[in-house]
Amino acid sequence: MDSKKQQEVRLQVSKDLNDRLINLGKNVISQLETYKDPGVDIPLRSLSNVYYDENSRLVKMGDKTTARNYFNMSQAKSFMQTMLIASKLRDVIKDGSQVGLRQLFYMCKGPILGTKEQTFDDQSESDIIVEDMEGILKALREEIGIFAASKGKLAGNITFVDTGDTIDCSKLGSSGYGIPSIVEKGVVDFEKVKADYILVVEKEQTWNSLNQNKFWKQKNCIMVTGKGQPDRGTRRLVARLHKELDLPVYVFTDMDIWGYYIYSVYKQGSINLAHFSENSAVPDAKFLGVKTSDVKKFDIPKEHWFAMKKVDFKRIKEIAAYDWFKGKKQWQQEFRALNDFKHGIEQDVLVAKGLKFMANEYLPYKMETKDWIDA
Amino acid sequence: MDSKKQQEVRLQVSKDLNDRLINLGKNVISQLETYKDPGVDIPLRSLSNVYYDENSRLVKMGDKTTARNYFNMSQAKSFMQTMLIASKLRDVIKDGSQVGLRQLFYMCKGPILGTKEQTFDDQSESDIIVEDMEGILKALREEIGIFAASKGKLAGNITFVDTGDTIDCSKLGSSGYGIPSIVEKGVVDFEKVKADYILVVEKEQTWNSLNQNKFWKQKNCIMVTGKGQPDRGTRRLVARLHKELDLPVYVFTDMDIWGYYIYSVYKQGSINLAHFSENSAVPDAKFLGVKTSDVKKFDIPKEHWFAMKKVDFKRIKEIAAYDWFKGKKQWQQEFRALNDFKHGIEQDVLVAKGLKFMANEYLPYKMETKDWIDA
Repeated sequence: MDSKKQQEVRLQVSKDLNDRLINLGKNVISQLETYKDPGVDIPLRSLSNVYYDENSRLVKMGDKTTARNYFNMSQAKSFMQTMLIASKLRDVIKDGSQVGLRQLFYMCKGPILGTKEQTFDDQSESDIIVEDMEGILKALREEIGIFAASKGKLAGNITFVDTGDTIDCSKLGSSGYGIPSIVEKGVVDFEKVKADYILVVEKEQTWNSLNQNKFWKQKNCIMVTGKGQPDRGTRRLVARLHKELDLPVYVFTDMDIWGYYIYSVYKQGSINLAHFSENSAVPDAKFLGVKTSDVKKFDIPKEHWFAMKKVDFKRIKEIAAYDWFKGKKQWQQEFRALNDFKHGIEQDVLVAKGLKFMANEYLPYKMETKDWIDA
Repeated sequence: MDSKKQQEVRLQVSKDLNDRLINLGKNVISQLETYKDPGVDIPLRSLSNVYYDENSRLVKMGDKTTARNYFNMSQAKSFMQTMLIASKLRDVIKDGSQVGLRQLFYMCKGPILGTKEQTFDDQSESDIIVEDMEGILKALREEIGIFAASKGKLAGNITFVDTGDTIDCSKLGSSGYGIPSIVEKGVVDFEKVKADYILVVEKEQTWNSLNQNKFWKQKNCIMVTGKGQPDRGTRRLVARLHKELDLPVYVFTDMDIWGYYIYSVYKQGSINLAHFSENSAVPDAKFLGVKTSDVKKFDIPKEHWFAMKKVDFKRIKEIAAYDWFKGKKQWQQEFRALNDFKHGIEQDVLVAKGLKFMANEYLPYKMETKDWIDA
């Protein structure tokens, strides 16, 4: 896909979003013209509207909405904020630019005529309205062109076209491809793909060790890290690679409840971004490890275990009770085993076992014997 | 520089470091053989041994050292830790691998024979010994091959050779080149350079906005961000680009005391990494803005100022009193002006003034009229 073709794709998305914004405005105007209280329905993002959908195997947002009206003392300000953000988003779309969340905040911040109030006092306010707009427009902020901080990186046998530039991710040295905040079609597109699967690695240091040994080359895969809890860009790119290229996804984390949760975010999405799951989760993702059965199997010495804290035990209970873990025998067993083992094990320990152990022994064993949790 | 040549460079560094480690070991052995208390001298990294060197215009470490001996109850453990880290660093060097700080911690963690003690309980302990080793060996941990988290990114008219891969930083789309933690010669080398200068941008969102407009292409520069307070890799790369390619460096931050301090870190180094300044600071760096005179000049509206807090005023006083700011009229004036203005201004505000204002008006004005602080 060349630069021109990418621009066309973006233009089409922009036109579509522009239409939706115009419709939103027209609705409000027609409410005014017919002397109705102007308002919009906002999809509810609270826990009461989040559920696990057995069919799609995703954490999803329900269809409850909440009204936001102008002639309502407690809603008037957020109604105004919603209209203001909507109008600025249209500017961004028309301009064809990308804009950061903090920059958007400043674009919207200003005095409310005839008062001492500001439209927005803090970026947390505008961030919330942007998420509301995602619900109203049924679009991602990334499609609109709003970016946040970027975090993840990637290396492997795949070539991207990123805003007109062709980038071979097998030729990026120790650096890798820095996954941008916005990885939508028309911004990041996929060309020549040789890889057989995607290996998602929790930690950057682990990713570095594997990249150094060109593990992705040896095993013909694409290797991603979200540097701990992944950002939206990393999740979205992994999901697109999986869906559009039919590449299986294997997730490799620390053996602790936080690592297991990171796996579940890649797999079925997260509670606080439930509306984002459909575009960013991979229900078929498999969990490679580190898991409790690895301790004996790979003879991980006691001095490399870390003692779990109260908060870890509490979190195990919480997570084991989530709908998307409740019915899964393998996971309930794993949670019990972790709870009883009373220790966690970090990926870094595998490097301590020998500088090439992880790349040459641990991961090949896992893949060859299918020693993963497929649930 | 091709892959082979890079390997040769690294091999030479490794040999050199290996010799220094062997010397360290031989010294200790000869102390033992002559019935002396085995010990090493560690360069002191406390504030009392940090000073501003007027000649080099760098924050530097003095030559005070502290003894660390085996037959000393309070030093025996850290002496053992020093020897242990030294021996593991030699393994890393001999293997030719790179290893993360956390991974190194696990490589060194283990039981002390005949006791219930561990060699290291926490990574913070091993990190300190690694910094000690930098002093003992007169080498950077990056040269040894020890990496930490990476952070910065870069785009512009320059081609790198990164561990054998040729990377044209003008063809990396919205992503840019992710600056690795280790950017030493033999790992990251410079090829074809067309750029005229380096623009260091404090914030990632600002960098994204400028990269989007391909500012670096318009102005033929290299554009770097350290995403706030820069990591060692970013500082080291900027310094190498400056020194080896003779490229001037301009730093562009928020108008607040934290932004001004970030400038001074790029320019003369930081107190807590004083031993690192010589390899990572650019005493000729110039401060582009945002500065107090910009408020009128660019008509930045009041609603885009943010009110300073107590901690900001306190920090202005502290920083104004640092030796490397004390004698500088321009900076003392700027600190007073900031203090009196009672507000800060973020870079993001310039995007709010119009989506291309920063790239097409603000920065060109700054560069053309030399509206910077050269001190």
